[in-house]
Amino acid sequence: MKSLLAATTLALATSDAGAQDLGATLPASIAQVAPALAAYGQSAVIGTLWADATLSPRDRALVTFAALMTRHEADTIGSHAELALDAGVTPAELSETITHLAFYTGWGNAIMATEALAPIYASRGVASTDLPGAEVDLLPLNADAEAAREANVQGNFGTVSPGVVDATREVLFHDLWLRPDLAPRDRSLVTVAALIAAGQPEQMTFHLHRAMDNGLTKDEAGGVLQHLAFYAGWPRVFSALPVARSVFEARGL
Amino acid sequence: MKSLLAATTLALATSDAGAQDLGATLPASIAQVAPALAAYGQSAVIGTLWADATLSPRDRALVTFAALMTRHEADTIGSHAELALDAGVTPAELSETITHLAFYTGWGNAIMATEALAPIYASRGVASTDLPGAEVDLLPLNADAEAAREANVQGNFGTVSPGVVDATREVLFHDLWLRPDLAPRDRSLVTVAALIAAGQPEQMTFHLHRAMDNGLTKDEAGGVLQHLAFYAGWPRVFSALPVARSVFEARGL
Amino acid sequence: MKSLLAATTLALATSDAGAQDLGATLPASIAQVAPALAAYGQSAVIGTLWADATLSPRDRALVTFAALMTRHEADTIGSHAELALDAGVTPAELSETITHLAFYTGWGNAIMATEALAPIYASRGVASTDLPGAEVDLLPLNADAEAAREANVQGNFGTVSPGVVDATREVLFHDLWLRPDLAPRDRSLVTVAALIAAGQPEQMTFHLHRAMDNGLTKDEAGGVLQHLAFYAGWPRVFSALPVARSVFEARGL
Repeated sequence: MKSLLAATTLALATSDAGAQDLGATLPASIAQVAPALAAYGQSAVIGTLWADATLSPRDRALVTFAALMTRHEADTIGSHAELALDAGVTPAELSETITHLAFYTGWGNAIMATEALAPIYASRGVASTDLPGAEVDLLPLNADAEAAREANVQGNFGTVSPGVVDATREVLFHDLWLRPDLAPRDRSLVTVAALIAAGQPEQMTFHLHRAMDNGLTKDEAGGVLQHLAFYAGWPRVFSALPVARSVFEARGL
Repeated sequence: MKSLLAATTLALATSDAGAQDLGATLPASIAQVAPALAAYGQSAVIGTLWADATLSPRDRALVTFAALMTRHEADTIGSHAELALDAGVTPAELSETITHLAFYTGWGNAIMATEALAPIYASRGVASTDLPGAEVDLLPLNADAEAAREANVQGNFGTVSPGVVDATREVLFHDLWLRPDLAPRDRSLVTVAALIAAGQPEQMTFHLHRAMDNGLTKDEAGGVLQHLAFYAGWPRVFSALPVARSVFEARGL
Repeated sequence: MKSLLAATTLALATSDAGAQDLGATLPASIAQVAPALAAYGQSAVIGTLWADATLSPRDRALVTFAALMTRHEADTIGSHAELALDAGVTPAELSETITHLAFYTGWGNAIMATEALAPIYASRGVASTDLPGAEVDLLPLNADAEAAREANVQGNFGTVSPGVVDATREVLFHDLWLRPDLAPRDRSLVTVAALIAAGQPEQMTFHLHRAMDNGLTKDEAGGVLQHLAFYAGWPRVFSALPVARSVFEARGL
């Protein structure tokens, strides 16, 4: 295990200074209270899961961060944010991930995340002026896809909650999704990860299709499911697997 | 945005002294780590959502409190409790909301909430003797509705878990729901909000019908959905929208 | 209530020294902020629920611990762990429960639990060397049941996420479930409790059948549902009741 661990740690580190390794996400209490779990952590999680090339360490770190934020895991999101930054997720991307998931997992999760990230950004010298603000040049809208989405939502729920329908269009699809500092593929990646972690497979069909339209491969999607089995628990993933299968089949994969 | 924010803050404040404004629910870390999110907070949340007359600020504060308690968001429930109290929710109503949601979202959420509220009540001079205790004059039972509910639950689950069936009748419907210090309409409001926030649309049909029997309007229900999109995340609301549509249709709305 | 409480506390205490009673799980803030809830705590929870012989106090404590870990309730899991240890759950069983639920509810919940347990084990003189590690003699595999499970999962999801399918077999069913220091019946008990608490009735059919194959009775399963109504909230249990009914019917119970 030792060499695999070292290799993984190396792959995750983008610089010598301040490099956090995966071991830092596992506190000493695990070995003290649950020695078997500590062993699984070394073998199944660090040695096997993170070393699996199906998904890059950078994507794994981003998916883990999305899951922890969705689950409001304030106690460990900081060390995983450090891991993500060391694995190549930029401060701007992490900032946009938090903003994105504020809408997809609830405002309070974003506040929890910014509270955890503030001292980390400060210690790394990342200032708010380095991060994307409200005024950015939006990516072009895919007018056809958006027209289909709007027609569907308007037709189904236009008279149920006009406020939701309007905010979905104006705030999410004509604005948030078009912000340039997190690639559409990564926005989709964290959205799908959040839906799996939240136990909402019923909302996954639209977003997994969109993720694959945005460049996520079938193998990567399968890797996301494997990764989240550990971080969101097996049952969440087993409820998501049938949806993934249906989406793959619908795409002839 | 500035004037809208000021107007909203004014509407929420019931007294000059100690008035908490919405801005107090947004910590400085948001602007530091996610400047775009801070801007959304001012424009989409404070300037638009809370200013929308579909739902009163008092109802918005109560719905937000219910969502945060359901989600065990200990970090921000205190500032939102202050907001609710300033928006006209009485200490007795908040106390009853916690008691009610102990049963509808789990005992531990209530403990989290009382831990957060104790210093706030103390600083506002609210003593336990000011709050409703076990001995109160219960509201009259709607015998027909209760007989139908009991027959349904007894028939479906009487031999599966007699303990659940008995406690549902004795503790919830012959006692908790009849306590006078939170209006039935408000009990239903926080129950529906909790079900949406918990991701349990499958339990919403009964309670949304009951909420509307208790006086919640279709527009208000649509406003609750819009409000929770921000505080519980878009996917929770999109899973609840079809249930709301079915209930509205069943009532000819 | 007083005498019932005393009797329950007595039943839970396995030794005079360090015995935690149920009252210790209810902080003073409850009576301060929600006096009615404090009264329900004495009557409905301590006086009635925990005193109900359908489920032993030891099983109730284990089920409660599983629910709190699943719900990431860091604030009260410590006092409930003390309660479980006093009710006869061994440190090794609690350690294995945490390890088991790391996989069934997500890694971060296990870290939260080990952080809470470390000082408790230290104060009780439980060292890591007293606890089961990675190297243990596994229980024999039920080859027929495992072949059926593997064929089902492989057939359904083998090409969707080979990584999940492989880890499910190697880490979970050929290893974790066979570890000897938590009885299969108890592994099933905490798994079913976790699925109910997490709001995943759709994953419960397999595990409730397995629990009953492992010795859980229908009455005990009904008692688990009643118990979790209080600790995970009524709606979680009402979504699980139809699944329990189907499983009971399929077994001719």
